[in-house]
Amino acid sequence: MPELRKDPFSTRWVIVAPERAGRPGSRLDRRGDAAPCPFCSGAENNTPPEVLAYRDDAGRPNGPGWRLRVVPNKYPALGADESAESPQPSPFRESMSAVGAHEVIIESPDHVKRAAELGLTRLEEVLSAYRDRIAAHRANDAWRYVLVYKNEGAAAGATLEHVHSQLVAAPLLPPDFSAELRLADEFYRARGRCRYCDWIEDERRDRSRLVSENGRFVALCPYAPRFPYETWILPIDHAADFGSTAPSLRALAEILQDLLGRIDRRLGRPALNWVLRSAPLRGHENSYHWRFEVLPRITGVAGFEWGSGMFINTVPPEESAGALRSA
Amino acid sequence: MPELRKDPFSTRWVIVAPERAGRPGSRLDRRGDAAPCPFCSGAENNTPPEVLAYRDDAGRPNGPGWRLRVVPNKYPALGADESAESPQPSPFRESMSAVGAHEVIIESPDHVKRAAELGLTRLEEVLSAYRDRIAAHRANDAWRYVLVYKNEGAAAGATLEHVHSQLVAAPLLPPDFSAELRLADEFYRARGRCRYCDWIEDERRDRSRLVSENGRFVALCPYAPRFPYETWILPIDHAADFGSTAPSLRALAEILQDLLGRIDRRLGRPALNWVLRSAPLRGHENSYHWRFEVLPRITGVAGFEWGSGMFINTVPPEESAGALRSA
Repeated sequence: MPELRKDPFSTRWVIVAPERAGRPGSRLDRRGDAAPCPFCSGAENNTPPEVLAYRDDAGRPNGPGWRLRVVPNKYPALGADESAESPQPSPFRESMSAVGAHEVIIESPDHVKRAAELGLTRLEEVLSAYRDRIAAHRANDAWRYVLVYKNEGAAAGATLEHVHSQLVAAPLLPPDFSAELRLADEFYRARGRCRYCDWIEDERRDRSRLVSENGRFVALCPYAPRFPYETWILPIDHAADFGSTAPSLRALAEILQDLLGRIDRRLGRPALNWVLRSAPLRGHENSYHWRFEVLPRITGVAGFEWGSGMFINTVPPEESAGALRSA
Repeated sequence: MPELRKDPFSTRWVIVAPERAGRPGSRLDRRGDAAPCPFCSGAENNTPPEVLAYRDDAGRPNGPGWRLRVVPNKYPALGADESAESPQPSPFRESMSAVGAHEVIIESPDHVKRAAELGLTRLEEVLSAYRDRIAAHRANDAWRYVLVYKNEGAAAGATLEHVHSQLVAAPLLPPDFSAELRLADEFYRARGRCRYCDWIEDERRDRSRLVSENGRFVALCPYAPRFPYETWILPIDHAADFGSTAPSLRALAEILQDLLGRIDRRLGRPALNWVLRSAPLRGHENSYHWRFEVLPRITGVAGFEWGSGMFINTVPPEESAGALRSA
């Protein structure tokens, strides 16, 4: 059973999950590279039973005929079971059992490797699956937060190449996110407005970090990005919860696909992560504003970052945005 | 001139340093791979003039004959010059000029690639150079903090293979470190003791995360490590500032060399970072306790980490420590 451990000298939590050490493609996997892809159509038996699938009428659950499947992660970072470690009697060893859900969104039945190649209809279904699974997890009172993310390419931490995302439902808010919410709530209490709405208006006026917009969404490089070409997509109208954006998923898929194309043309199909930062499952409806963070991974993270928690970025966001605009 | 920018939605600072984009070996370098090593003996003209060198009597400054050299980084993340950007009139764009020092410690005149191969005498000189440069920067009232770190191997963010470390003297405390110091100071005010001293005693009694000790120093895997086999070295007796450990540098070199050997035998010469977390240049003498963090880089950092600020670690520190003890 994975365990959540708190570093005694900071606000950092770490999930200690030895079950994940043996997963295919991980550095600690000892089974070799020749295993067939467990995510392709026809290999449904290689995953745990699906929790969601979009399929045409003919298909049976856990058989072929699906367009998109969501399955529990076979090597979960959080588990369903509450057999906690015995509490350790030390102020230096704070832990809780890592209860939660860890799911994989398999984005195509074919062995496609990159989200940029999914096409608009599939990309919209991926976003629908995010919405549907977030809604499903909202029903569980034990979960406070759902994080959706994608690792694409080895340099982005992917261990399988078949196009997929992951979802974690967690019993605690990540400390960094709590800090962000505190700032957002304070601003709302003082001014009665969403701080992100103000900021989006300001960036749309300034234009220097803008990549694109399509009426409903804006893509822009943030003022202090961790990585070269880091780009955020946000709804222009106020929306704290990704789920409330349901009617606009087509427009979101359009701006995301356009952005992925620009990144590929500029950077030559780099590895990338993306992260959906939606509001917690309850509260903060007026103060928070959801966003997609798209993070091309063309530079490494090194001792400076691990030692300081700060980042060195060699490409100013104004330059990234300009290059992506004209790509 | 590099610029320090604050993310408007968190406590994160980012150094935007476009000057670094063209450095040798970086992904954005367009000069190709064939350049000779600028750190080898005989290539002294390829670096800025040295600020420190350990050399035998015969050698002249910036000529051959040195055992160790410290030179300003040719592609600095922080600069000496205060030609600030004009302040931008927006609450969403807080910045300051990134004034500071960024130096490279060249740890051997020969093209050695790994600190584990330096030998004890050179490793002790590396630690002496850290101490000497921290002392030199302490004289500058504008600096609040000196961070020393090593990137070894491409997976650890190194762009040059010749064995070296780096040092950054900065005008601000990293926000994560400020948070750690607040906890340490609170504990000292309440109890009159260093919290780290208590913790070291507790870990030495518990033994399950202990790798080695040699009378003056202890090497242990922390309770909530970010990475598999992450190991910290700390002085057993109280010492906030690395510089105050001067008489014990030989014993520190010994435990560090021993640890690097254990890591190599266990993990097959992995890429690694190390980070020296010493107290800020002024204050916190009673409450803080310096440490070396040695971070083997055998796993990637992925969307989960970027989205949550938390880490998934597949190897419990008790297992890491056990494996390193018997390696």
